[in-house]
Amino acid sequence: MSVFKNIPTIQFEGKGSDNPFAFKHYNPKEVVLGKTMEEHLRFAVAYWHTYVANGTDQFGVGTAVRDWDKFSGLDLAKARVEANFEFMEKLDIPYFCFHDVDIAPEGATLAESNKNLDVIVAQIKDNMKSSGRKLLWNTANMFSNPRYVFGAGTAVNADVYAYAAAQVKKGLEVGKELGGENYVFWGGREGYETLLNTDMAFELDNLARLYHMAIDYANQIGFDAQFLIEPKPKEPTKHQYDFDAATTIAFLQKYGLQDKFKLNLEANHATLAGHTFEHEIRVSAINGMLGSLDANQGDYLLGWDTDEFPTDLYSTTLAMYEVLKAGGLGRGGVNFDAKVRRGSFEVDDLFFAHIAGMDSFAWGLKAAAKLIEGRVLDSIIENRYRSFKEGIGADVVSGKATLASLEAYALQNSVIKNESGRQERIKNILNDVIFSV
Amino acid sequence: MSVFKNIPTIQFEGKGSDNPFAFKHYNPKEVVLGKTMEEHLRFAVAYWHTYVANGTDQFGVGTAVRDWDKFSGLDLAKARVEANFEFMEKLDIPYFCFHDVDIAPEGATLAESNKNLDVIVAQIKDNMKSSGRKLLWNTANMFSNPRYVFGAGTAVNADVYAYAAAQVKKGLEVGKELGGENYVFWGGREGYETLLNTDMAFELDNLARLYHMAIDYANQIGFDAQFLIEPKPKEPTKHQYDFDAATTIAFLQKYGLQDKFKLNLEANHATLAGHTFEHEIRVSAINGMLGSLDANQGDYLLGWDTDEFPTDLYSTTLAMYEVLKAGGLGRGGVNFDAKVRRGSFEVDDLFFAHIAGMDSFAWGLKAAAKLIEGRVLDSIIENRYRSFKEGIGADVVSGKATLASLEAYALQNSVIKNESGRQERIKNILNDVIFSV
Amino acid sequence: MSVFKNIPTIQFEGKGSDNPFAFKHYNPKEVVLGKTMEEHLRFAVAYWHTYVANGTDQFGVGTAVRDWDKFSGLDLAKARVEANFEFMEKLDIPYFCFHDVDIAPEGATLAESNKNLDVIVAQIKDNMKSSGRKLLWNTANMFSNPRYVFGAGTAVNADVYAYAAAQVKKGLEVGKELGGENYVFWGGREGYETLLNTDMAFELDNLARLYHMAIDYANQIGFDAQFLIEPKPKEPTKHQYDFDAATTIAFLQKYGLQDKFKLNLEANHATLAGHTFEHEIRVSAINGMLGSLDANQGDYLLGWDTDEFPTDLYSTTLAMYEVLKAGGLGRGGVNFDAKVRRGSFEVDDLFFAHIAGMDSFAWGLKAAAKLIEGRVLDSIIENRYRSFKEGIGADVVSGKATLASLEAYALQNSVIKNESGRQERIKNILNDVIFSV
Amino acid sequence: MSVFKNIPTIQFEGKGSDNPFAFKHYNPKEVVLGKTMEEHLRFAVAYWHTYVANGTDQFGVGTAVRDWDKFSGLDLAKARVEANFEFMEKLDIPYFCFHDVDIAPEGATLAESNKNLDVIVAQIKDNMKSSGRKLLWNTANMFSNPRYVFGAGTAVNADVYAYAAAQVKKGLEVGKELGGENYVFWGGREGYETLLNTDMAFELDNLARLYHMAIDYANQIGFDAQFLIEPKPKEPTKHQYDFDAATTIAFLQKYGLQDKFKLNLEANHATLAGHTFEHEIRVSAINGMLGSLDANQGDYLLGWDTDEFPTDLYSTTLAMYEVLKAGGLGRGGVNFDAKVRRGSFEVDDLFFAHIAGMDSFAWGLKAAAKLIEGRVLDSIIENRYRSFKEGIGADVVSGKATLASLEAYALQNSVIKNESGRQERIKNILNDVIFSV
Repeated sequence: MSVFKNIPTIQFEGKGSDNPFAFKHYNPKEVVLGKTMEEHLRFAVAYWHTYVANGTDQFGVGTAVRDWDKFSGLDLAKARVEANFEFMEKLDIPYFCFHDVDIAPEGATLAESNKNLDVIVAQIKDNMKSSGRKLLWNTANMFSNPRYVFGAGTAVNADVYAYAAAQVKKGLEVGKELGGENYVFWGGREGYETLLNTDMAFELDNLARLYHMAIDYANQIGFDAQFLIEPKPKEPTKHQYDFDAATTIAFLQKYGLQDKFKLNLEANHATLAGHTFEHEIRVSAINGMLGSLDANQGDYLLGWDTDEFPTDLYSTTLAMYEVLKAGGLGRGGVNFDAKVRRGSFEVDDLFFAHIAGMDSFAWGLKAAAKLIEGRVLDSIIENRYRSFKEGIGADVVSGKATLASLEAYALQNSVIKNESGRQERIKNILNDVIFSV
Repeated sequence: MSVFKNIPTIQFEGKGSDNPFAFKHYNPKEVVLGKTMEEHLRFAVAYWHTYVANGTDQFGVGTAVRDWDKFSGLDLAKARVEANFEFMEKLDIPYFCFHDVDIAPEGATLAESNKNLDVIVAQIKDNMKSSGRKLLWNTANMFSNPRYVFGAGTAVNADVYAYAAAQVKKGLEVGKELGGENYVFWGGREGYETLLNTDMAFELDNLARLYHMAIDYANQIGFDAQFLIEPKPKEPTKHQYDFDAATTIAFLQKYGLQDKFKLNLEANHATLAGHTFEHEIRVSAINGMLGSLDANQGDYLLGWDTDEFPTDLYSTTLAMYEVLKAGGLGRGGVNFDAKVRRGSFEVDDLFFAHIAGMDSFAWGLKAAAKLIEGRVLDSIIENRYRSFKEGIGADVVSGKATLASLEAYALQNSVIKNESGRQERIKNILNDVIFSV
Repeated sequence: MSVFKNIPTIQFEGKGSDNPFAFKHYNPKEVVLGKTMEEHLRFAVAYWHTYVANGTDQFGVGTAVRDWDKFSGLDLAKARVEANFEFMEKLDIPYFCFHDVDIAPEGATLAESNKNLDVIVAQIKDNMKSSGRKLLWNTANMFSNPRYVFGAGTAVNADVYAYAAAQVKKGLEVGKELGGENYVFWGGREGYETLLNTDMAFELDNLARLYHMAIDYANQIGFDAQFLIEPKPKEPTKHQYDFDAATTIAFLQKYGLQDKFKLNLEANHATLAGHTFEHEIRVSAINGMLGSLDANQGDYLLGWDTDEFPTDLYSTTLAMYEVLKAGGLGRGGVNFDAKVRRGSFEVDDLFFAHIAGMDSFAWGLKAAAKLIEGRVLDSIIENRYRSFKEGIGADVVSGKATLASLEAYALQNSVIKNESGRQERIKNILNDVIFSV
Repeated sequence: MSVFKNIPTIQFEGKGSDNPFAFKHYNPKEVVLGKTMEEHLRFAVAYWHTYVANGTDQFGVGTAVRDWDKFSGLDLAKARVEANFEFMEKLDIPYFCFHDVDIAPEGATLAESNKNLDVIVAQIKDNMKSSGRKLLWNTANMFSNPRYVFGAGTAVNADVYAYAAAQVKKGLEVGKELGGENYVFWGGREGYETLLNTDMAFELDNLARLYHMAIDYANQIGFDAQFLIEPKPKEPTKHQYDFDAATTIAFLQKYGLQDKFKLNLEANHATLAGHTFEHEIRVSAINGMLGSLDANQGDYLLGWDTDEFPTDLYSTTLAMYEVLKAGGLGRGGVNFDAKVRRGSFEVDDLFFAHIAGMDSFAWGLKAAAKLIEGRVLDSIIENRYRSFKEGIGADVVSGKATLASLEAYALQNSVIKNESGRQERIKNILNDVIFSV
């Protein structure tokens, strides 16, 4: 019943290999900084992009050629489950992630949708047991159905809000049933098209209420997953409330949710918001909010979410550097929230794309480890801020300094000597570190 | 000794007038929603753009033709003070704003700089007394001098930090001396060029320390101005810490500063961060953080801070709508942080530009008042969210609902009817409201 | 059999009206600068947005509630034809535009598709005769079907190229049958996703070959429509060949096509390319290439084609100003290539949106006429360039000047006096002109 | 009299070296694809960034610490000449480029400016003779002086136009005197701030007239340099006429200048216009317009011209790939139109930055050569377009096909099979090629 029968199991062959169906950099059991690559990276397949998406865009219908497209309804859902576990095994990917509607068809009623979910969740659970594959996170799709046209947790219509709450409840139950390590909220429609018809304050209050209910219910059923919010600035909505990491942190702090949530950060969402991926990771890390990564890349010359597979080694290196400095991903992982291009419509492309992404992150991990082991950046930083280790600088850090004491110092010290920040030199060094991996 | 002797006093002549040196919409004493226009708008002149800037850009030297450019040093500084008060009087602008280095030349030492400031502050104080003009806010320029190349409150060098603290101390003293209503921090260099050589966590801790010291010192000297932070996402720095309103709020919350600071919001900074001006005002207002406005406009097709005088009536209307809904500007005002184009280099242009800005904000105020009086948007909002007034919606708002109770409701209510958001109709109405003012 | 039976015929009621189903500014028979509004504006309905699109976006399925959705296949196609003529009549819109696949379903083969087209074209022709409505332009959709994944006229596969050519052939025949005034090419997939697998030179040569074949065939069958190319920089393709007006003109000049083609300019495409709509019109006009307009507007803070109905009066005024200065639209028109928001899913919204667009363009037309009648901008321009009317300036224009003669002049004339460009003053005047209409 | 006496001569040491003052990849005499690296790359120093710029930005004054800043006037100019030749020698850079005002101070009159130029040009000529260093190109700065506030060749004022013409004349004479290989026009102010006061058609006609005069004069004095235009979309001007390569080509074609001009392409200008650098090179190459390169890189998250030194190996590889495929740079070169960051203010940084840029371009050259030698992309392209080699495809290319013949073919061939474009696989291969150099 294999759907990928023509594809070999992907194995590590190393840099010399010219086998397109092999890893050149990702070697799961290779130890880097004291842990294996698979422990560091905790790769996950994104169910929606890999088994559901078909290459449709705003100007054209699907192009993907997929074996399971001969089925429909629950049969299609079941075929995708089998495909998922075969795919994960071929690539030796330990985790997967899904929205409720990815795995089971929506029914005519909520009850029917939930029944469909139960059927498929049971099948998934069996497969998980036999394969040892695990659920990184699940979530509820509260953005595709027309009912969510004006939001879910921020809906203008209480009936919609109730329906969303029911989806979240079921999502938490499914997460518990499958032993999910995290539970994600992505607010695809939580935002506005125009402020003119929007009560932002009311909507945000309601969203916080939903999160508090979700925490209560998870506690009630003993589901101890880490809650994650995934920031994105825009698209589909003109302006989403969870614009970026900092905005989401402000929201969580305001509503007393900062200890219950971390962030699921996506590279392409970062750049759409005007930040680098590493910036978003840094901001999260220094606020104790680094949860998990959605690995992909955008196109800087395009203004929408292209969700390309990550192949930019600068980005994977700097992302993994931030992760390592933050102490690792914990319960999070590296989920390929990435889609093959519309022109990459063959099944082989699913494998080539994941190999590209996994090799690029493995490369990034190794380059980041070299930066750390060589204290390449640490020594620069240490030297750069050294004046805060003693004297007036130490007084600032200890809290002893006041405006008056600092003024007294400055009055004696009007001519100040700075040292170059050496950006060009550092970037040149970075090239050599990354590309000598 | 008038420098604007050829310019008449600008007065309100109303819509029919074709006098370029007259207001057509700004009528200071006209009452709108119970207050006079001047009470609502509290216009301020920005000292730096009006008396200091000369049209220099990255590719060319200054073009401005200014009478006071025949002077230099303290004489130049004094001439600008006189120009300021004559300018404010001609346009009947009640407030002004400045950075320390705008009003007095930097000396070779901090002590000399402070001495220069004392001379000019005394002259300003005299002029304020005789003219009745007031200080909306002052601030310290901690970004132009080379010492601040890597920040001030986030400097990598403790000597620089101390110097910045001394400038803030003097700034607070000057603010108190002149009865300033607010004191502003804009972190032009508080951010980074590259994360590779930056300790973001340490820098932000230091910045918070500086703000706490400032609060302490203001308390100590009895200066009760409102502290304001002005967000901006980028430029001059690649990435500034106070990226936008939400980011700044997250910072203030984290460091326990949220009750001591409000925000000074600039239109062009909003759009550079990917938001509308009205979005930033709304976000601030619902967090109790609306402080003051820097009125200008950017060019959406350009990626830098163009600081144009505001003439877009859609923007001025929606900004003033948010202000009125938030209960007004309080101690804040509408400061023209705007510069005449490099090609508008004649003195007349300073007047034409301020007239354009003031008329545009007056127009926006009147249009916003019409929206409020006619309950144009309020009635849309009220109707749109009405389902939260009773039944399951009311349970959500009251905190009575749980995921379980909402699921129970949703299971009985799978088919949901939404109503159109009517965006196109609302925008059409908006045209008629704005342009029938 | 009316599908819009609850909607009244839309009529001009003027500014005072508060009837949402009435025009306040568009008065078809009102004379402006010597022609009626309907002669100036030549409005057209876009078949795809109005009868086919359903609010689907990349993250959600359709929301639109349409009476004709109860049908499918050819019956659906027929119902849409009836809807079209009823819609045009209710709004008194004289023209419509379509892609082949908008009006008739694609069959399993090219032959079947063409047969379907014949059925519907006959029905349309009957309706045109009885209603007096006309075809502004038609085109072939060579971007939605998966076969066009790598382009049509720039396909990498000759079979695809042949299919595209056949679609163009049929399109020209349909255009002739219906008396279309223009025939449009929009290269939705004519471009590339990555240069790495693209032979740009070869693809552009092929595209030019297709255009030459189309000219030949139109001549052969006696179809004298104006050929138009519609520039767009990106989306769906990462980079489209017809990036903007200037790029398209370069292509047409290179391949000797500049006398056979004009441009169909879209507002949102302009801004995505980094230009204003009026810029694109100006560039086309001064190259003799102004063909027709696709009226809509984008959102400057979003990076994709939002295709909103045009309501920004600055944009409609400046667009119509350029059109009037260029001598009008000729055989072109103002086609609403605009879609109601996903949240505006009711049939009423189709009307509200078109009313908004038509009123906004009527308003823009009247404002532009005022600018022209008052010589508001003409007098500024005339004065600004006056130095080229005599002396050394006239020598430049006549071609008499050389570098040597100009240097001789400049050596005697080192101090040059410029005059302010008065941008702020002009923008202020513009507000009063636009909004006193 | 050395100003760089503490800096060693920079030599190639290869990948293992940890000497910051050495090349790791640029080895001038190493042969790549039949030519030495220095023959391929033809590096040039940009006089303005290296000896004149001081780190000033819109929000702060200069930071650069330069030995020659102790001089002023002609003495400063002379010191910079000496610095230039010492700098080129230390880095073994064969070419340099300058604007007139970079090398000699402007005088109070044109005559005085020209006299200053004569002094410095003589000094430069002597240094060129003794050092063997050469002039890649020179140009006239017609954008910094206030007289050019509204353009030079597109000035609104004939006096300004005459002055510009005189500067061009002198520039051609200087180019001839120094044996310059190219002469560049960059239209920093040739564009507009607002269309409202701009006669675009007239301005472009005038610009073309200036170019024709320049051609005539170069012929007259026997200066056979290649003329180059450097496209840039915006900044300083809101919208520059030479927006990008295609726009510039359209202009040259329209005015019959396409055989006399080629393009000088800059990476950062490309991305500001919405294109990759390699796109601009490809467009120029397929139009026979590839002239020279201004090597730098922008920051995709910033909207202005950051002119960073190029260190992105993806970009340098793909740029050099396009150059090699186009047959090389001919009389052009790789000019570092790049500035050290404001925070890289020490003299060492000038060296580190040039080393970074030269190593990055050398790396890119070698990677590009590997792509070519391995036919990595050529074989993909060849296979992808193979259907145009025979049958109906060959008929298209030969011009034999018509719409009718293609339709006849398509009617028999409705089901078309495409092949994947393999973008992800190609990008993965690219990583291994680039980074195994």
